[in-house]
Amino acid sequence: MFSGLPADVAGPIETRFAQAGCPVISNSSSHRMDDGVPLLVPEVNPDHLALLKARSGRGFIVTNPNCSTVMIALVLAPLAARFGLEAVVATTLQALSGAGYPGVASLDITDNVVPFIANEEEKIPRETRKILGRLNGGRVTPAEFAVSAQCHRVNVIDGHMAALRVKLARAAEPAELRQAFESFTALPQELHLPSAPARPIVVRDEPDRPQPRLDRDAGGGMSVSVGRIARDDVMGHRFVALSHNTIRGAAGAAILNAELLLAKGYLHPGD
Amino acid sequence: MFSGLPADVAGPIETRFAQAGCPVISNSSSHRMDDGVPLLVPEVNPDHLALLKARSGRGFIVTNPNCSTVMIALVLAPLAARFGLEAVVATTLQALSGAGYPGVASLDITDNVVPFIANEEEKIPRETRKILGRLNGGRVTPAEFAVSAQCHRVNVIDGHMAALRVKLARAAEPAELRQAFESFTALPQELHLPSAPARPIVVRDEPDRPQPRLDRDAGGGMSVSVGRIARDDVMGHRFVALSHNTIRGAAGAAILNAELLLAKGYLHPGD
Amino acid sequence: MFSGLPADVAGPIETRFAQAGCPVISNSSSHRMDDGVPLLVPEVNPDHLALLKARSGRGFIVTNPNCSTVMIALVLAPLAARFGLEAVVATTLQALSGAGYPGVASLDITDNVVPFIANEEEKIPRETRKILGRLNGGRVTPAEFAVSAQCHRVNVIDGHMAALRVKLARAAEPAELRQAFESFTALPQELHLPSAPARPIVVRDEPDRPQPRLDRDAGGGMSVSVGRIARDDVMGHRFVALSHNTIRGAAGAAILNAELLLAKGYLHPGD
Amino acid sequence: MFSGLPADVAGPIETRFAQAGCPVISNSSSHRMDDGVPLLVPEVNPDHLALLKARSGRGFIVTNPNCSTVMIALVLAPLAARFGLEAVVATTLQALSGAGYPGVASLDITDNVVPFIANEEEKIPRETRKILGRLNGGRVTPAEFAVSAQCHRVNVIDGHMAALRVKLARAAEPAELRQAFESFTALPQELHLPSAPARPIVVRDEPDRPQPRLDRDAGGGMSVSVGRIARDDVMGHRFVALSHNTIRGAAGAAILNAELLLAKGYLHPGD
Repeated sequence: MFSGLPADVAGPIETRFAQAGCPVISNSSSHRMDDGVPLLVPEVNPDHLALLKARSGRGFIVTNPNCSTVMIALVLAPLAARFGLEAVVATTLQALSGAGYPGVASLDITDNVVPFIANEEEKIPRETRKILGRLNGGRVTPAEFAVSAQCHRVNVIDGHMAALRVKLARAAEPAELRQAFESFTALPQELHLPSAPARPIVVRDEPDRPQPRLDRDAGGGMSVSVGRIARDDVMGHRFVALSHNTIRGAAGAAILNAELLLAKGYLHPGD
Repeated sequence: MFSGLPADVAGPIETRFAQAGCPVISNSSSHRMDDGVPLLVPEVNPDHLALLKARSGRGFIVTNPNCSTVMIALVLAPLAARFGLEAVVATTLQALSGAGYPGVASLDITDNVVPFIANEEEKIPRETRKILGRLNGGRVTPAEFAVSAQCHRVNVIDGHMAALRVKLARAAEPAELRQAFESFTALPQELHLPSAPARPIVVRDEPDRPQPRLDRDAGGGMSVSVGRIARDDVMGHRFVALSHNTIRGAAGAAILNAELLLAKGYLHPGD
Repeated sequence: MFSGLPADVAGPIETRFAQAGCPVISNSSSHRMDDGVPLLVPEVNPDHLALLKARSGRGFIVTNPNCSTVMIALVLAPLAARFGLEAVVATTLQALSGAGYPGVASLDITDNVVPFIANEEEKIPRETRKILGRLNGGRVTPAEFAVSAQCHRVNVIDGHMAALRVKLARAAEPAELRQAFESFTALPQELHLPSAPARPIVVRDEPDRPQPRLDRDAGGGMSVSVGRIARDDVMGHRFVALSHNTIRGAAGAAILNAELLLAKGYLHPGD
Repeated sequence: MFSGLPADVAGPIETRFAQAGCPVISNSSSHRMDDGVPLLVPEVNPDHLALLKARSGRGFIVTNPNCSTVMIALVLAPLAARFGLEAVVATTLQALSGAGYPGVASLDITDNVVPFIANEEEKIPRETRKILGRLNGGRVTPAEFAVSAQCHRVNVIDGHMAALRVKLARAAEPAELRQAFESFTALPQELHLPSAPARPIVVRDEPDRPQPRLDRDAGGGMSVSVGRIARDDVMGHRFVALSHNTIRGAAGAAILNAELLLAKGYLHPGD
């Protein structure tokens, strides 16, 4: 499809490809917050693809979120839709593979936790609010709820966990949150996109689930598992989410984005 | 000092010893919430020992808190004193030794996190509020702030971590919290109790500290290390605390309690 | 097939079932060394099933070896056949799942190795020599080579490793050992037994393989991976073997045994 | 003591310093096998310092062995002296810190073992034989016994383990080996060198010892722990050794070397 970048196209690689007329589906963080770039979770904000409409030609950039943000946005989506969201407190326990390879030195993480992941506590709030934001005159207005993130690296190979508290806009029983999670399906499921899991959110009712080793492969690594749904004295409600950070949190997310773009006519494989 | 329980003293072992005239300094959770029992952190609520005044004879029970609560109460104390506290959100990453021996099966925790520790999410709020509560007509009125706890077992041998957010009663710069932590000393330091660390709270300014393996032995395992102090969009402020769960969080806490009791005339070693 | 044990059949459970006329295919260690009981690795000693011929009725016991022994016997088989074996030195690094559940306490194995597994250093020699022994007048005469085993528990979920040195009866180039391993197939492969891997022994030529996490699932967990084949100044040759201890080393071994028994007419599923 | 390298001194850094008249006490592997360089374990071969006698001036290089070799040489020394040694089979389980920092990637070693450490299987035999070799006309003739090494990286922070088999020159009861280990002391103990442990070899009689986490700090990290002494069907005897790889296996070894050099008049601190 692509036979080389014209010599006069300068700038970062994704921009150059896009300017040269290529669709760019990227997992990198460089353009996620750009105005004309959808930060896409196909189950959550497929309408944001309208950002691409304004562009002339076929070149564009579509990005998927940070490995923790994608699961947070996905589980917040049905809550925002049903109950409204006023604030989110996210505390993550993130896997080693999130740092790439060689990534985290074994001497740093054996018998240890590192309460720091560069830029992560900044990315989660701003990306979450963009994904759950509203299209408004060709731009995305970020969602207005506040998001707090504290991020930790733990000694787990794959599978990011997030302990979440939410302040909802209206009263709700924990069972209603459970129902909102369990019944959630969206456009990728309707379109039967090849990488779309049957259930984007899997509810676990055991008191000690979800766990990275047991639940990261749910839905072929594309489902987010949720458990421990309960009332919370400070925020109203709390629960724990888990997903596979290199599948739903990275490569799988980009592939699902590509599948949605293809299904919606943004890609032209025969070119 | 003690030559046997009278035959007519019935009930749980700690109660029986106390009724038989013994001072009981206990690390167990059985009597922590009892009305006449101080839940003691010597740096935080030594005035609660007045609960013992009402008792006839020398028998009594003094308890120390749950292994996570002690560090949470300790770091909240200077904040409550200086700024007032309105709410606390605590997310813990707790070490294996907290579960005793044999405790957690290696097959359950290798390459894994378990988001459940029995009763822990209930103990932390109620114990924290009792410790930071006020003596009131011979009883402790629990502090009024709400506490939310989400607790996780992680693959660390020793050292409990807590990601904390606090809502203070008045505006404060992060540097003021830092100063409140760093300058905090209390009665055990004044009395030079043998197990009292010179600094109950050690502030770490590196972006990736505290860490269990590097910081659990601060102050001989009796100091709590604090780092990552920052503003928080939802709660106002946040930081990370860490302490040695089997020293400050268990045996060391009981010993420091005994040292305070001795210094204050509650124990009579010559008996 | 089986409708209850007659009341007059006493003794250990496997013996009682066998005496009651049942075929018993067991993974337990109780009867492995019994005279009339084949200790079966289908690729290695299917001829040992002749031990069952002498029995009247359909009841019998067939066992599979200890989780480390099965992989050791499997890789020794082609060497014994081609070069003759005079001595074997096996040092194992065994996975946590070998101890069952809850098994090894996390506090015992985190940041640690335990150089002891009960009875393992005795089982490996005697079982290996029985498996590679010769049928002789209705009994198995153990192979005559000496076997030395030193066994260690390491912090790995699944996958037993064995560092092996062998003294062969005749001179051989390492490449000849490699060829013996790689070309090895046997009766289960001929019979296309459902659980038989296409290659019982997979040779890895990378300098740092086999590794438990990367190689334990070779052949659906039924292949043994071998690497680091080299000359050895003391014993003559050395190499490293690895297999999945709960598949080829336990349940999968028993199933493959059952498949062989069925194929050879020892089981009568229609009964 | 040292004020700069003369401009005309070329070559590797240690050689240049030595040629410039400096005593060089090195932990690096570069010169260990050089003819005029003692590969020193003060308890084992202090007589090798005579190699330095031939040198004019004060410059020289003294090295300590590879982190696994030092413990192997130390435990072999009393066996060689009492019983004679004919062959040694060493299988190591080595700690992460042996690879330096950042060293081993966490993704490579979590839930895993790596059966490869670059050059280690070559270093152990040649260094062991040099250390236990005999001074002969101003050179060291390597000991004649064969040594086989198989080396593995395991998920342990500090503490190298070696499963050892030895073929002795004369018959011996396991209790005699135990006695040889336990009673072993040498020149550093006689001279009361500051870093010399009271007992260079600590015998553990529990069936599951030594273990890295429990025994690596024996003798301040300078003692080697030995356990599981037993007969071996192939080699004659076997046992397990463990020592702290960054103390006795590296920095501590170099310091003990310096202490011996000082005590024997090879260093002149007042210069």
